[in-house]
Amino acid sequence: MRRPDGRAHDEVRPITVQHGYLAHAEGSVLYRQGQTWVLCAVTAEAEVPPFLRDSGSGWITAEYAMLPRSTAVRVPREGRAGAVRGRTHEIQRLIGRSLRAVVDLEALGPLTLRVDCDVLQADGGTRTASVTGAFLALRDAVATLLEQGRIDEDPVRDTLAAVSAGIVDGTALLDLDYAEDAAAEVDANFVLTGSGRLVEVQATAEAAPFEWAEFESLAALARFGVEVILARVAS
Amino acid sequence: MRRPDGRAHDEVRPITVQHGYLAHAEGSVLYRQGQTWVLCAVTAEAEVPPFLRDSGSGWITAEYAMLPRSTAVRVPREGRAGAVRGRTHEIQRLIGRSLRAVVDLEALGPLTLRVDCDVLQADGGTRTASVTGAFLALRDAVATLLEQGRIDEDPVRDTLAAVSAGIVDGTALLDLDYAEDAAAEVDANFVLTGSGRLVEVQATAEAAPFEWAEFESLAALARFGVEVILARVAS
Amino acid sequence: MRRPDGRAHDEVRPITVQHGYLAHAEGSVLYRQGQTWVLCAVTAEAEVPPFLRDSGSGWITAEYAMLPRSTAVRVPREGRAGAVRGRTHEIQRLIGRSLRAVVDLEALGPLTLRVDCDVLQADGGTRTASVTGAFLALRDAVATLLEQGRIDEDPVRDTLAAVSAGIVDGTALLDLDYAEDAAAEVDANFVLTGSGRLVEVQATAEAAPFEWAEFESLAALARFGVEVILARVAS
Amino acid sequence: MRRPDGRAHDEVRPITVQHGYLAHAEGSVLYRQGQTWVLCAVTAEAEVPPFLRDSGSGWITAEYAMLPRSTAVRVPREGRAGAVRGRTHEIQRLIGRSLRAVVDLEALGPLTLRVDCDVLQADGGTRTASVTGAFLALRDAVATLLEQGRIDEDPVRDTLAAVSAGIVDGTALLDLDYAEDAAAEVDANFVLTGSGRLVEVQATAEAAPFEWAEFESLAALARFGVEVILARVAS
Amino acid sequence: MRRPDGRAHDEVRPITVQHGYLAHAEGSVLYRQGQTWVLCAVTAEAEVPPFLRDSGSGWITAEYAMLPRSTAVRVPREGRAGAVRGRTHEIQRLIGRSLRAVVDLEALGPLTLRVDCDVLQADGGTRTASVTGAFLALRDAVATLLEQGRIDEDPVRDTLAAVSAGIVDGTALLDLDYAEDAAAEVDANFVLTGSGRLVEVQATAEAAPFEWAEFESLAALARFGVEVILARVAS
Amino acid sequence: MRRPDGRAHDEVRPITVQHGYLAHAEGSVLYRQGQTWVLCAVTAEAEVPPFLRDSGSGWITAEYAMLPRSTAVRVPREGRAGAVRGRTHEIQRLIGRSLRAVVDLEALGPLTLRVDCDVLQADGGTRTASVTGAFLALRDAVATLLEQGRIDEDPVRDTLAAVSAGIVDGTALLDLDYAEDAAAEVDANFVLTGSGRLVEVQATAEAAPFEWAEFESLAALARFGVEVILARVAS
Repeated sequence: MRRPDGRAHDEVRPITVQHGYLAHAEGSVLYRQGQTWVLCAVTAEAEVPPFLRDSGSGWITAEYAMLPRSTAVRVPREGRAGAVRGRTHEIQRLIGRSLRAVVDLEALGPLTLRVDCDVLQADGGTRTASVTGAFLALRDAVATLLEQGRIDEDPVRDTLAAVSAGIVDGTALLDLDYAEDAAAEVDANFVLTGSGRLVEVQATAEAAPFEWAEFESLAALARFGVEVILARVAS
Repeated sequence: MRRPDGRAHDEVRPITVQHGYLAHAEGSVLYRQGQTWVLCAVTAEAEVPPFLRDSGSGWITAEYAMLPRSTAVRVPREGRAGAVRGRTHEIQRLIGRSLRAVVDLEALGPLTLRVDCDVLQADGGTRTASVTGAFLALRDAVATLLEQGRIDEDPVRDTLAAVSAGIVDGTALLDLDYAEDAAAEVDANFVLTGSGRLVEVQATAEAAPFEWAEFESLAALARFGVEVILARVAS
Repeated sequence: MRRPDGRAHDEVRPITVQHGYLAHAEGSVLYRQGQTWVLCAVTAEAEVPPFLRDSGSGWITAEYAMLPRSTAVRVPREGRAGAVRGRTHEIQRLIGRSLRAVVDLEALGPLTLRVDCDVLQADGGTRTASVTGAFLALRDAVATLLEQGRIDEDPVRDTLAAVSAGIVDGTALLDLDYAEDAAAEVDANFVLTGSGRLVEVQATAEAAPFEWAEFESLAALARFGVEVILARVAS
Repeated sequence: MRRPDGRAHDEVRPITVQHGYLAHAEGSVLYRQGQTWVLCAVTAEAEVPPFLRDSGSGWITAEYAMLPRSTAVRVPREGRAGAVRGRTHEIQRLIGRSLRAVVDLEALGPLTLRVDCDVLQADGGTRTASVTGAFLALRDAVATLLEQGRIDEDPVRDTLAAVSAGIVDGTALLDLDYAEDAAAEVDANFVLTGSGRLVEVQATAEAAPFEWAEFESLAALARFGVEVILARVAS
Repeated sequence: MRRPDGRAHDEVRPITVQHGYLAHAEGSVLYRQGQTWVLCAVTAEAEVPPFLRDSGSGWITAEYAMLPRSTAVRVPREGRAGAVRGRTHEIQRLIGRSLRAVVDLEALGPLTLRVDCDVLQADGGTRTASVTGAFLALRDAVATLLEQGRIDEDPVRDTLAAVSAGIVDGTALLDLDYAEDAAAEVDANFVLTGSGRLVEVQATAEAAPFEWAEFESLAALARFGVEVILARVAS
Repeated sequence: MRRPDGRAHDEVRPITVQHGYLAHAEGSVLYRQGQTWVLCAVTAEAEVPPFLRDSGSGWITAEYAMLPRSTAVRVPREGRAGAVRGRTHEIQRLIGRSLRAVVDLEALGPLTLRVDCDVLQADGGTRTASVTGAFLALRDAVATLLEQGRIDEDPVRDTLAAVSAGIVDGTALLDLDYAEDAAAEVDANFVLTGSGRLVEVQATAEAAPFEWAEFESLAALARFGVEVILARVAS
């Protein structure tokens, strides 16, 4: 069975990464996976949150937003009218947590890396694309900081990528686009490392509970998908 | 190895459920699991959100809050000074999604069931206790609605409970209390049905990435834990 | 004339006080007067507001909230959608002012006692029940602070309780429940001390102006009611 | 004993009322009592709040604000930075309640009278001056509405004025200015009618509880003061 | 052609300035230009914004608001329900910028002059009346500060006034009232100095683009109008 | 005298326009003028604001935002922490007003065109680049709407572009970059039409008042600059 855009069930969409997209950021990439485009920019600030003050340790945090017309139907700007949506909070917490899992915060030293993920265009998988793009921008920022002598050693301990998987019409699919995501019975996101370990798993029944065997097939797709993504972005 | 409170690694804390705690709510329980106490109250409203209008289908949504002094250090009331925290958004979305997975919303008909989970005291696992307590209060509310003739058939399709599991000092533990949760290397929450299926899985590396084998051991503990919880609350 | 629940016109509803309800708070009580239940918790913080800094004096402040389903019709959580209601501001200011009137803030020393009054269930008189419950929790907190050596002397100078009174169908009644309160022509709240003095009086015409003689009869009921309440909670 | 400005203990400050101060409002007065100046403006809107819809009854509501430099030390504009203060909520609720007590809302018909009380200059007693000024502006607005044929009969059933009283250095004083108010041991506000009845009483211990006899002396001063004020503004 | 109120096309409305209107402010004027009345009050605070700290330089900032019933149709209080309007931001930024252009901030020294412009009544031209009134109040405040020895030299380098001009029915008019402003095809505001220089020009096509010649005629009117205003307020 | 980037005093920075940048928007361009990049997207909605309901007329409105890391120092996301800045309000009002001046809103019919201008990178002149980019995206959207039959005739009556000019070190310069803008003594923005008429002029003294002759020289530069820009984007 072929998918609407002709992909195999375990095929990741085309990926392009434009490094150094912005002039000012310590690291930035325009990450495109299919029609999902995320601009990721890293800012290094010489201070840490109160709970880390005087600890010597650094911090990594993220913000996520969608441009109003990234989607087929315009979404209002968050924080202008009405509060920031729960979904946004979830995603930006996920991005920050994922990055912190592969960075040695003590080796980073007393800096905060603030990662902005702004979705220019959305076609499913914006949260996983944001994690992958954010990791690439962070690695570029670390290179800048090393060059500038603001840090002494590379604190990044592993590579990282994220991918979605889901069950659509009873079939497990990798890297869902928007139409597939909207039709999925089960929706899962995996953040995995280059060394094959887990950083985050989230799997959710969209309509009815699902079987452990289904979960296993999604996990297998995700392991494969992350390997593919890491291979592509490495070049 | 015994845990600080003497529990075995796969032992759930004592559970008490006080049904009909509140006079006015369609269903309410004071759910206590160890020193974590959640007051869950269900309100049935004769309207549905705009996206379901004229669909015949009902809706279930949840709100979650901690009383300021539920914790060892007082937490400010959300929404008074500063915005509602991302963690709160995550938890109340999780509760709503979990309940909807075991309820036939068309059989519910054009009602919204609004579930309030207020944590009177917190000692770890407030989100999973909220899911379990919310399900029990919802079942009581459904009984009330059937009695009152506001619904014709029981729309609840399965039983539901949630439990946490985590890796502490290299050991997989079930149903973490606050001290264990704060020390955990991996933190996972599982929402499962009485029929043994999955509603939601969330597993997170708190410090460093973890192995798939570790995830499997947490999943096994959770399957066992949910069976224990469902057996206890059934009586 | 007997009231709907069989009480005499000058009869206070049954009161139960559960001291030490919460594990963490310096002092806490679950105060129940009829079907009005308020959970009062006191937190001692080692700092004072800016206007008292370096004065040696302490401070007492309060917050008040109703759980959404404390009432027959669910009330939205304040501060989530929409601002905190004026009624809430009034009540929490009243609680703080009342407590400060019987505590020697200089003897308290540079601490802030923060009192949270959360209404679990509401059946009229939540503001007066909150004052009475808050005073009891505060006294427990003071005992804890004395034991812990955080204060040297007991700064509480008098006992305190509050009660409502009102005119319903031309009759002066003590301690109105919700139905009586909704029907009252005059509504009054009195905060009085064990020594028979006044801390706060508020009397309001709900529909039409009233006579000074009516006010006098409400004041007499309140003096009697506060004596009854203080006698009951003393044991 | 003479007061700082030479007044007797039971003497009301000079009052001037400028009717029709604003060109557009249905009724408006600039009310000055000593150095406390309040601009009161009434707007009649052809709609009522949801709870009165289709009842035939009208409504009266009020808003209160202080201009930033009405006071010796500038106060920030409410609602710009930070929320509206509890004191403001209290005062505007008091004004609305007081006016409603002397107006027959059914005779008013399905209109909302919205009263804005803006304090141009503050020297104590702004809440009582607002009540008195609001009543005068409301009466002017009613005259306009009668002229315009928007209402058929005068719904005002009694005259109304408010005054403060307090105990300063053990002496009961009428109509406190700011310095006296700041030094008062007991602070009370009375809203009374021309027919000698009560609309609202609020008495508060500022430091220590007070005696019933003290309350009585404040009440006597207030009864006298309201008579004086009503006589002055009648001309 | 005569205007509705009989003015010539280049005639400024009658102006009255009441200096020292408020007891407490360092400088205050009630500025009336026709039926547009603005109360301007200046507060001197012994601190400067963060970006000027330790620079020795002072700062001038402004806030602008309309009283709810300054207008024919009541406008809601900003910041109570809904955010502060963009128009308000624009106007208060304009006032602050204009004043700073004629004051030597280094000569002012490390003070912030905070100017509050509150529109008591509005009949067109509230922003230009606010600039003119604010300048007059600022000059009075400077006189007070010199007297009090809080500043050593007069930092005001030039006089300042503002005026509106517009094209209505093809005719260029000076100092538009509300009805003229609402009908204008082009709307312009000029802030000019006594020495004939420019501080701010804003010209806007209300419906269709306009010619440079039209702009020139508005500029000529404004130069004349500011001279007239400065002559009148000087006395 | 050459400018830092080698431009002549009357030279506009290089411009590139990427039409149809986004898949979903009715019209969108990525507009780049030097290192200032603005993504402009137009959404057509089949409704109009309340004040135009049943008028047959359409509406055009705009929102403006800067991505956090568009600038050398990261700017916080507006509306997340703290309110939307006054500068943002000013700019988005300017964009909307400018577009409405060259569109026949009655010919547009009962649609709202909502224009989002998101600054991906900022190097001075973001407001004028936003106006120019917004106009180009709007023209593309109109073409789409004509193709889709949602409008019958082209409502655009003229072409439009905006440009900044300023006086730096006594020299009038066209199209300031960020460094020039920060150093400018006078800062002006012009929105002009292809037919040579004015839509908006704003000129501001940044430090000291300026001469009318200086204003004239800026206006002359702007007239030339807009011609250049319109010629470049036409191709």
